[in-house]
Amino acid sequence: MPKFFLPPEEMQDNFMVLTGEQYQHAKVLRLKNGDAVTVCDGRGTDCRCIVSDVSEGRISLVVQSRDASLAEPAVEVTVYMAFPKSDKLEHVIQKATELGVYAVVAFPSARCVSRPDEKSLRKKLERWQKIAASAAEQSGRGRIPEVRMLPSYAAALAEAANADLPVLFYENERSRTFRAAIEAAPGFRTAALLTGPEGGLEESEVEAAGKAGLNICTLGSRILRCETAPLCALSALMYAAGEF
Amino acid sequence: MPKFFLPPEEMQDNFMVLTGEQYQHAKVLRLKNGDAVTVCDGRGTDCRCIVSDVSEGRISLVVQSRDASLAEPAVEVTVYMAFPKSDKLEHVIQKATELGVYAVVAFPSARCVSRPDEKSLRKKLERWQKIAASAAEQSGRGRIPEVRMLPSYAAALAEAANADLPVLFYENERSRTFRAAIEAAPGFRTAALLTGPEGGLEESEVEAAGKAGLNICTLGSRILRCETAPLCALSALMYAAGEF
Repeated sequence: MPKFFLPPEEMQDNFMVLTGEQYQHAKVLRLKNGDAVTVCDGRGTDCRCIVSDVSEGRISLVVQSRDASLAEPAVEVTVYMAFPKSDKLEHVIQKATELGVYAVVAFPSARCVSRPDEKSLRKKLERWQKIAASAAEQSGRGRIPEVRMLPSYAAALAEAANADLPVLFYENERSRTFRAAIEAAPGFRTAALLTGPEGGLEESEVEAAGKAGLNICTLGSRILRCETAPLCALSALMYAAGEF
Repeated sequence: MPKFFLPPEEMQDNFMVLTGEQYQHAKVLRLKNGDAVTVCDGRGTDCRCIVSDVSEGRISLVVQSRDASLAEPAVEVTVYMAFPKSDKLEHVIQKATELGVYAVVAFPSARCVSRPDEKSLRKKLERWQKIAASAAEQSGRGRIPEVRMLPSYAAALAEAANADLPVLFYENERSRTFRAAIEAAPGFRTAALLTGPEGGLEESEVEAAGKAGLNICTLGSRILRCETAPLCALSALMYAAGEF
């Protein structure tokens, strides 16, 4: 069933209207009277609706039922990613959204080769949020993951450490497995998965993460690219959490 | 430690030489006498070597030891992917290689929007094999995954069915989880993960897979893009197999 996201303030109890971009999308799908669609507030609520009128520029819907989205995972997993080259971050935002991520947070680290300046950041965040919204729509999510940028590595550690299951993946870690960290946090509800930039994290950064309370784990004996590691970890964690 | 792949016929017992592309790669790394490198036959054997001479166009190595690669997973997982648009297949080849795939096999299915003709196929296979080789080198693999194309969906089913754990992922499957299939094949050594094209598999194709003996499984309640599904499944399976 086609899915549309509306801003929470446009969600109504009995009737709703698709305009603008959503109307364009509906037009491509050739929606007609009587078709069923899902309208979602992007915060976990799905409304089942029926098309009641199609006019130029607006499609009217009658709300039939309203439920918590079934497409949201039971666990809230946030990906913390050292700021990579822009196309890689966009790739991770799109794929992590499909895979059920709760939020994607970028942060600077010592070996980051690029980071956005203050000026371009607002525009970029807008663009990233759009990528998340579009991937959420296509994958049938009930939530649009938030995309944020933190000002420092220390801020990322402090925030990540609050999760029930906070993990940093380090290619030089050989013995401590992700599985061990997951099994040591039974019934976890929130997880933070932190990965480094193209050039890796510095040893001192990894030490700081350990002191902040993060589990330092391996993702196996192969070196993963910076955009592969968070998606591999996220896939594995959703599996471990019983999502599929 | 830098890693180089040599064709098995160029592997020698005591001395080896890097020329051509491998020499160029070594030059970028500024290798000098006494540096340690790994030379791999791409079939699971790693040789630890020491640089003994650097000349224009050739770098000589002395072999110190020879071992089965530690970077190869204990399970052989083959990804069978309905032929997608070319950039997506290349993406999957690169990422699946990093994640430890044994082979990547493309096949045609009813809703495939593109498929290579006989004429272009040989060139494409060459290109895909190079992508696998390059990703294997960068991720430190001990094997270069083979990339192949099968002539029909039936051929893909017949081959996949030979694995200890053969699975087809279908977005309309709701109840049977990947976990259930994995747990029903304890001690599996080989796995086949089959996924559909952009437009999905047809119901009759899914039925045929079930008859051929494949497990029909869900990858969760979110719709994954055709290039995301095999990588999600591969990550989860490597986790389930105890790789990390």
